[in-house]
Amino acid sequence: MIEKIGRQAREAARVVATASTATKNDALEAMAASLEASAEEILAANAGDVAQAQTLEIGDALMDRLTLTDARLASMAAGLRKVAGLPDPIGVATGGWTMPNGIRVQRVRSPLGVVAVIYEARPNVTADAGGLAFKAGNAAILRGSSYALGSNQAVAAALRSGLASAGLPADAIQLLEDTSREAAAELMQATEWVDLLVPRGGPGLIQAMIDNATVPYVIDGAGNCHVYVDEAADLEKARAITVNAKISRPAVCNAAESLLVHEAVAAKFIPEVAAELIENGVELRGDELTQELVPQAGKASDEDYGTEFHDLIMSIKVVPSVAAAVDHILEYGSGHTDAIVSEDYGAIDTFVRGVDSAVTMVNASTRFTDGEEFGFGAEIGISTQKLHVRGPMGLEALTCERYVLYGTGQVR
Amino acid sequence: MIEKIGRQAREAARVVATASTATKNDALEAMAASLEASAEEILAANAGDVAQAQTLEIGDALMDRLTLTDARLASMAAGLRKVAGLPDPIGVATGGWTMPNGIRVQRVRSPLGVVAVIYEARPNVTADAGGLAFKAGNAAILRGSSYALGSNQAVAAALRSGLASAGLPADAIQLLEDTSREAAAELMQATEWVDLLVPRGGPGLIQAMIDNATVPYVIDGAGNCHVYVDEAADLEKARAITVNAKISRPAVCNAAESLLVHEAVAAKFIPEVAAELIENGVELRGDELTQELVPQAGKASDEDYGTEFHDLIMSIKVVPSVAAAVDHILEYGSGHTDAIVSEDYGAIDTFVRGVDSAVTMVNASTRFTDGEEFGFGAEIGISTQKLHVRGPMGLEALTCERYVLYGTGQVR
Repeated sequence: MIEKIGRQAREAARVVATASTATKNDALEAMAASLEASAEEILAANAGDVAQAQTLEIGDALMDRLTLTDARLASMAAGLRKVAGLPDPIGVATGGWTMPNGIRVQRVRSPLGVVAVIYEARPNVTADAGGLAFKAGNAAILRGSSYALGSNQAVAAALRSGLASAGLPADAIQLLEDTSREAAAELMQATEWVDLLVPRGGPGLIQAMIDNATVPYVIDGAGNCHVYVDEAADLEKARAITVNAKISRPAVCNAAESLLVHEAVAAKFIPEVAAELIENGVELRGDELTQELVPQAGKASDEDYGTEFHDLIMSIKVVPSVAAAVDHILEYGSGHTDAIVSEDYGAIDTFVRGVDSAVTMVNASTRFTDGEEFGFGAEIGISTQKLHVRGPMGLEALTCERYVLYGTGQVR
Repeated sequence: MIEKIGRQAREAARVVATASTATKNDALEAMAASLEASAEEILAANAGDVAQAQTLEIGDALMDRLTLTDARLASMAAGLRKVAGLPDPIGVATGGWTMPNGIRVQRVRSPLGVVAVIYEARPNVTADAGGLAFKAGNAAILRGSSYALGSNQAVAAALRSGLASAGLPADAIQLLEDTSREAAAELMQATEWVDLLVPRGGPGLIQAMIDNATVPYVIDGAGNCHVYVDEAADLEKARAITVNAKISRPAVCNAAESLLVHEAVAAKFIPEVAAELIENGVELRGDELTQELVPQAGKASDEDYGTEFHDLIMSIKVVPSVAAAVDHILEYGSGHTDAIVSEDYGAIDTFVRGVDSAVTMVNASTRFTDGEEFGFGAEIGISTQKLHVRGPMGLEALTCERYVLYGTGQVR
């Protein structure tokens, strides 16, 4: 199964890798048009998935993600057109020099080859991830959830027809129709056919990948993000940043989970911010001093400090110094995003040097760790690993670099 | 065992990560001086290893690598001083822009944290790898061969004493003294303590890493390098490049293993180059046409075309076009280094676009894929993987990038 799909992907990837930017953009436009033209089939297939899912009681959040509407289809097509408008990452020179012997060295951005994406019951990912992998010059193997199989088949058929109508191999986007765990495990170990595996899903998927994958992958991991409010903080900025980081979208990975407050401002700041957080439905779990300052706060356990709640819950701790805040973050953080609020140059310097997260924020909300906010135009995820790529991942994350050396007969 | 060493490495890494360039360079100088001051102990320990190895009949090549001399010790110390002289990769800005909302984005090069190196019976790697990992702001865990344990202990002790005399934690360089396979496997799975694993060794070590490692690693893989001689080649350049690529150092990974020749020049080129190769002791294995042109050539099997001989053996094949050469390389190559010799712009363009190796050479020997030749000043290996880093790996390969965002209170 994987071998057939893998071989087809490999062959398609060779064609896509050398396709011109114009050809790729035409194909993305054709895919968008094909999605629109297939709206009826796609929505019918989706209705089938939804009806099936209703018998399985999958929960409201999952059902919402699974359900396609005219507006969501339009947004998928618009997404493909937006990707067409993004700069082509392929062929960009990322370095170059001349060796003493006259050989000209060029480092150029190149496609990875075959990108596999494993995702949950969101049929829009089929178009989003397929379009991004393709624009970066790769073939894609997409493995969605069994709940969305009918929808994914209909979307993939539309994308493939768009590719073919633009004169490119339809196999540049393939759906793995076997949605069993075994097939996913096989895909995770298809080192001969897959150059990069990207997960789009929750901690269960990430852990399965860490446990099973032998192909290279990126970890789109936990975001146990911190806001540290320094003794020299502008407390109004601190309040706005803390509240925004916690409540604007609590279920996403760049939401703050933990608030650290310098002891010099704890008595003034914590009651104020706690009142606003509680008013917005946030459950607080603090250390002893926090509990003294905020009677409604529960007691924070060690586990709480290490937890990404994904919910309207926030842990709070009073710390004696910026160094102690750094220590706490290195101990409990997940290396995603951590923020300092301070007007003191030295404290900021200590924090920025000491914290080793994918993104460190100075006087800004953790919520800015995001591909769109970063100006990447699209996002395939947020990497919390150190190799290959860190932080928000745009088109570049789906590429690699290679060297081309131009000589005139040099030998060594 | 690993947990203790890992915890110590993690703590030392925090100090090294924020050490200034001057401090790191002073420490490298102190390590070099300490190596020189400990010459007697190191050579005595090495003599013990060598005597022990002689009872085990380990072979001449391995014995040569194991043996330290005054000259080799001097070269290890000189290597550390050279690394001190290299530009510090840490803190280098690799990108930056301002968001529409005024947040200033900086992407900066940062240490990885803890780098583990597994290597064979070459005690000089203890100093080389330890020095490079340290200069890049990391702590190192070094695991050498049991054959070299005494030597490695003596070298590591000297390095650690140099670190301490420069006021840095000795645990920034630790030797894993348990040289069992089990300890190596444990190190390969110490995801909590190891940020990058670098292998310095042969295919057996690489395969063990692929099979066992759960920590991130770089593959310093096989070099089944090709030279393609185009119909528009300057045959004198082609001859010099082919001979240099094959015979100048046949055991290294950037040596050529396979020669592809366009059919239009085969009858003229192959007998000439074959004569010179044979004169230099190279065994040739060719396709039918090659065998007709060179009676001494054996028959090349499919396996031969896929083999990195590491020896004075070369496979030869006549191809009908540059496209066929690209197809052959994509089928049999290992993605290390592949060269075209041609004066034709179109053929070079087809080759450069079609081949997807870490390094593509145009009219230059494959032997130039090398950290020193690339100007990196030092090399920790040559990556044949696509993620993180490809081709020769210098100090930058031991770093990662992170983002720091400077705001003035922005929320989303």
